[in-house]
Amino acid sequence: MSKKLTVAVVGATGAVGREMLKTLHEREFPATEVRAFASARSAGIKVPFGERELTVEELKEDVFEGIDLAIFSAGGAASQKFSPHAAHAGCVVVDNSAAWRMDERCPLVVPEVNAGALNGHNGIIANPNCSTIQMVVALKPLHDAAKIKRVVVSTYQAVSGTGQKGIEELERQVRDLFNGRDPENNTYPYRIAFNCLPHIDVFLENDYTKEEMKMVHETVKIFNDPSVKVTATCVRVPVFYCHAESVNIETEKKMSARDARVMLSQAPGVRVFDNPRELMYPMPGYCVGDDFTFVGRIREDETIENGLNMWIVADNVRKGAALNAVQIAEELVQRELVRVTDKDIFMS
Amino acid sequence: MSKKLTVAVVGATGAVGREMLKTLHEREFPATEVRAFASARSAGIKVPFGERELTVEELKEDVFEGIDLAIFSAGGAASQKFSPHAAHAGCVVVDNSAAWRMDERCPLVVPEVNAGALNGHNGIIANPNCSTIQMVVALKPLHDAAKIKRVVVSTYQAVSGTGQKGIEELERQVRDLFNGRDPENNTYPYRIAFNCLPHIDVFLENDYTKEEMKMVHETVKIFNDPSVKVTATCVRVPVFYCHAESVNIETEKKMSARDARVMLSQAPGVRVFDNPRELMYPMPGYCVGDDFTFVGRIREDETIENGLNMWIVADNVRKGAALNAVQIAEELVQRELVRVTDKDIFMS
Repeated sequence: MSKKLTVAVVGATGAVGREMLKTLHEREFPATEVRAFASARSAGIKVPFGERELTVEELKEDVFEGIDLAIFSAGGAASQKFSPHAAHAGCVVVDNSAAWRMDERCPLVVPEVNAGALNGHNGIIANPNCSTIQMVVALKPLHDAAKIKRVVVSTYQAVSGTGQKGIEELERQVRDLFNGRDPENNTYPYRIAFNCLPHIDVFLENDYTKEEMKMVHETVKIFNDPSVKVTATCVRVPVFYCHAESVNIETEKKMSARDARVMLSQAPGVRVFDNPRELMYPMPGYCVGDDFTFVGRIREDETIENGLNMWIVADNVRKGAALNAVQIAEELVQRELVRVTDKDIFMS
Repeated sequence: MSKKLTVAVVGATGAVGREMLKTLHEREFPATEVRAFASARSAGIKVPFGERELTVEELKEDVFEGIDLAIFSAGGAASQKFSPHAAHAGCVVVDNSAAWRMDERCPLVVPEVNAGALNGHNGIIANPNCSTIQMVVALKPLHDAAKIKRVVVSTYQAVSGTGQKGIEELERQVRDLFNGRDPENNTYPYRIAFNCLPHIDVFLENDYTKEEMKMVHETVKIFNDPSVKVTATCVRVPVFYCHAESVNIETEKKMSARDARVMLSQAPGVRVFDNPRELMYPMPGYCVGDDFTFVGRIREDETIENGLNMWIVADNVRKGAALNAVQIAEELVQRELVRVTDKDIFMS
């Protein structure tokens, strides 16, 4: 490792930020230096990086000089404010928030699906929404083979999608209920313990939630194919880690469940876990900490000519966030794209 | 109340049996006598009926003489064995199991949807599956108005659908996990606490579960319309009571979300709970003990010409089982149908 490569994790104290540091270390990311940033409130805190600890530095506009690559998981507002300064300093940003995803200047990348979109990037690369990532990883090989026309998806999303405070809310509410105390709702508008909330992110004008519309728009952008139509219902369930998705697709060409299984078993990042006779199917409680997107319950849908049902599960904090961001960073290194060509494009 | 009407609850010690007794009492069912039956193991046990208690009698083939109406919730095997003897003795059976649902001799009834199917019954009337009941209650008015061609449904089903042992399993597993003990799986093949199981009832030849195919076939029978095509993915979630369903429909005629809301708000047994701006949507944790089928998150699906998404929640133990069975019994009384014409039809 001769070439200097300084990497920063921005938002290093959050659930995803910590997982990013863990993932960088586990995958032996070729950084010569790793730095951790967070808001002033968290500056000075130590965060683990392998055997070592990093001291969290305060995030400011002028900290990016000398940093080659910054992986952001600090929320949309912070990203909107600081990413342009990073790019201006020549630091390539991989951002986990929704701030840049639909920006035409920014590629939206899932390496197994559209790594090529990184070529000619402008300094900020967006990491898609967690529920989109696992869906497109599973659907890409089927789209390539049979062309997907329509997707009807219902999600079963874990509280870790809301970060550490979602995890703590579910845990506290369960404890309270089992101890005869009235559980408080601080993070979610209603109780999440032993309940399902058909409401993730804010409601939009069309009565869909922002989370649901992310799945619609991000899928089109990642597939670079406006002919793929997605309709989504996003639901929070009382599960700590891993999102599950019940996905119904209609394809242009006929594809049997068996063909889909074969195709998916050869696809990058996918594990087919589908043998009903042996009670084999993926479940959120059993995929925690895993890097793969698991697909099971693959069945032909007899209500249309070319239809399939399936059940997709992945760790929302790993593949849905930290891992995908680190994989993007790895692609950037491998493709020698850790450089910003137009340093002012986001500064106007 | 002059006319003699003896009613029996068969399987009176189970979760649904107890709810049936409670429901009969609450709704002041016009019985002159109520009796409780269960297997020999439970005979002698007392079960509450309003302020009173009933002593559970042992279920035998010859107990039905003098009983006018028996509501069964004793499982498929017991129903298959005992219901014909009840009918043979002139006792009309309303059965909650799957044993008779697809039998051509037996009407399958949700009173708000197809009470007329009771006319000319042969002595055994079947109560549909819990997840089917709430779906058809919500879809019937839309089907009448715009003709439903296709339904894609994903369920979020509570553990009480498995009876008392499902409730106890979730409770025990949560306690064990929160106390650092390894949770055991006795009722479900995998942990249900903080997990989702895409597996309800047994797997069939076509890789769908029996629960999923119940939704397909029962909907057609209740609507008496083989042109309604249903495809289902049934999932158990860590919730104690109330099933939720994410339902996507395609209709022949155009129907706006607003039209659907108006239509549903006038439909029997339905409550529209749908105002995203006020964070109003139905949730399993907040519908427990309620008799209505709640519908919210009604949105136009822009991926097809005439499509709607919605979110349907109902108490699976009430409307999904006990209440619907008691409502059938009420219809039988009101329509003066508490009589068996051909006492031998099920005895061959």
